[in-house]
Amino acid sequence: MSRPIITLTTDYGTGDHLVAAMKGVILKVNPEAQIVDLCHAVMPFDILDGALTIGQAYKYYPPKTIHVVVVDPGVGSTRRPILVSGDQHYFVAPDNGVLSMVYEREEKVTVRHVTAEHYFQSPVSNTFHGRDIFAPVAAWLAKNGQSQSFGDEIADYVRFALPKPKVNGSQIKGIVLKVDNFGNLISNLTPDDVPQVVSGGAAFKIIAGSREITSLSSNYSQGAPGEVLAVIGSSGFLEVSVNKGHAARTLSLQRGGEITVQLG
Amino acid sequence: MSRPIITLTTDYGTGDHLVAAMKGVILKVNPEAQIVDLCHAVMPFDILDGALTIGQAYKYYPPKTIHVVVVDPGVGSTRRPILVSGDQHYFVAPDNGVLSMVYEREEKVTVRHVTAEHYFQSPVSNTFHGRDIFAPVAAWLAKNGQSQSFGDEIADYVRFALPKPKVNGSQIKGIVLKVDNFGNLISNLTPDDVPQVVSGGAAFKIIAGSREITSLSSNYSQGAPGEVLAVIGSSGFLEVSVNKGHAARTLSLQRGGEITVQLG
Amino acid sequence: MSRPIITLTTDYGTGDHLVAAMKGVILKVNPEAQIVDLCHAVMPFDILDGALTIGQAYKYYPPKTIHVVVVDPGVGSTRRPILVSGDQHYFVAPDNGVLSMVYEREEKVTVRHVTAEHYFQSPVSNTFHGRDIFAPVAAWLAKNGQSQSFGDEIADYVRFALPKPKVNGSQIKGIVLKVDNFGNLISNLTPDDVPQVVSGGAAFKIIAGSREITSLSSNYSQGAPGEVLAVIGSSGFLEVSVNKGHAARTLSLQRGGEITVQLG
Repeated sequence: MSRPIITLTTDYGTGDHLVAAMKGVILKVNPEAQIVDLCHAVMPFDILDGALTIGQAYKYYPPKTIHVVVVDPGVGSTRRPILVSGDQHYFVAPDNGVLSMVYEREEKVTVRHVTAEHYFQSPVSNTFHGRDIFAPVAAWLAKNGQSQSFGDEIADYVRFALPKPKVNGSQIKGIVLKVDNFGNLISNLTPDDVPQVVSGGAAFKIIAGSREITSLSSNYSQGAPGEVLAVIGSSGFLEVSVNKGHAARTLSLQRGGEITVQLG
Repeated sequence: MSRPIITLTTDYGTGDHLVAAMKGVILKVNPEAQIVDLCHAVMPFDILDGALTIGQAYKYYPPKTIHVVVVDPGVGSTRRPILVSGDQHYFVAPDNGVLSMVYEREEKVTVRHVTAEHYFQSPVSNTFHGRDIFAPVAAWLAKNGQSQSFGDEIADYVRFALPKPKVNGSQIKGIVLKVDNFGNLISNLTPDDVPQVVSGGAAFKIIAGSREITSLSSNYSQGAPGEVLAVIGSSGFLEVSVNKGHAARTLSLQRGGEITVQLG
Repeated sequence: MSRPIITLTTDYGTGDHLVAAMKGVILKVNPEAQIVDLCHAVMPFDILDGALTIGQAYKYYPPKTIHVVVVDPGVGSTRRPILVSGDQHYFVAPDNGVLSMVYEREEKVTVRHVTAEHYFQSPVSNTFHGRDIFAPVAAWLAKNGQSQSFGDEIADYVRFALPKPKVNGSQIKGIVLKVDNFGNLISNLTPDDVPQVVSGGAAFKIIAGSREITSLSSNYSQGAPGEVLAVIGSSGFLEVSVNKGHAARTLSLQRGGEITVQLG
């Protein structure tokens, strides 16, 4: 029997003991748990950033992995804690839309309002449900595997649409979802949105800041150092990159900035 | 049998191989150890920050957890390595006061001067006892469970008083102990220091920078976005927060800054 | 039987899901793997920094540890993935010299060009071989222990010389390899390069920025706070340090800066 895997995604950062408190609570309930830090650098309060982070990573984990996702600006208010069963994974999170990309990628999900308070830390604080609710719920679920014991199914869970590209004639307008550690600008444009760019059959311009890119590269090291490139990145999104450079700085573009494809 | 848990708290950061060397040493002695990064972002050389970090986190861990705490500006000098047995946990650290909050929270501790050099790496460097002394001592303790084999008990271990609020008539002066990832200003004021604030029976002002707060909120999302709030945070301290904002920036207050409660 | 250990060294940072995707892939292939983050703060694209990071850390790990090292500016180009068997450890990396310090420290290595594509993720992206090649190769190796099953031995692997001190009469010129979390300037000068400094038998000056140091300290806390010191650090290199200060800031020196020893 393998040890149960619990991943943690939060906006807590790693500058203090908050994540450590969650891990301690998990290990106290379930010392067999194998805890994996998925990401603690979600932008503070940023539910969209949290949704993208877990949405792009969860499928790489083995079946029955439990993903705890805590981006929770409404902690202590009336927003509900939920437990979601997807095709192969579990998710424990606040019901604020942070699982929207998971909902988009899973064929069918069962969403439960977690109400079984005997699984919570006691007392439950008003400011740290990561420690008091989400961590112990994940640890108990890893132990008993009984998702139905945590609460009743609900249908009115919160879900938002991820930002979609806007098509206007021959122009497809995307935005930057994320800047990665190398300065690559990861857009929300997929091959399905811009098939002409991927097939290469017709002329196009990718406009990012003041630069125009007229071909698609297959990897980051094509072209000369300093050259601005476009690639389809590893998560399936169009990215703008600078060979051995930092596209975000070179192009003065940040998250939310525009990346536009002009066809013809 | 569960795997023994060893947590690591240091001021080494995560920018190089220092923490990794400690982990390697632990795993070489004891491949069964389950290593948990408690926090590596303690401010460099800052024994008080280290004391607060471990002091607020250790109780969440299971009994017999071994906490290694290395904030050690005096490494290589005459300060002693110690092994502390508390009610349920062990601590391995330099004897410089970094366990002061642990001493405050534990009813009874046994403190040993670690002198059993056969447990150390050989040779012992003068600059990296995290790797050469504290890590292997923790790994061996996790293996043999014999704290008395590491050295004799001492009574004159170093311990400092954590900064306490100052009361002056109807004024209680606290300071900011820590700014968290959200910019919340965590003070050293507890409900016991300011019962009037918690009970709400009488008028009060909480003065932080140029702002005054006249009520206590139950969580961070009360009030309008941008509003300055006071809450009792998850570690039991009064915190000043900005709804969906960053209190440290809004109020221009940092660690060490004043937060004062004026009664009446 | 202990769980197999896989360490990860990358320049991915911890700001997104990249490292988490690698961990998921490893755990899917081999749920028994014990994954250790060695360092994810290698400077982006910086093969030398990667070489130093793994080179200084790997020996602390138990025999049979598998070290995955991904600093890979040429991902998706023709550079080869390799699997290296040293005396006691394995290394999985791109063939771009990132293992040069390992080659220098190991007596004998066997280097294989990894060509067994059935171990890879399918499809293999052009931009993220950490996830698609290096992680699964490490996970399968941890499972089957058969390094020869991954590809044929090669002799023409890429290897560069680490920057060596330059001797000019009585002057030995070194450079700063790394600035650590405390601001210590770690040079490439070893005791073998400057035996006179270590033995203390003759006069010398260590010149760093505008400062001169004329004695060797045994640890960082010698001298008065703020004093500039030289020590032989824990990795065996000469370091310039400021007692309770930050040498890089005080001396305005960064990585690549000069540290010169003048004898006599």
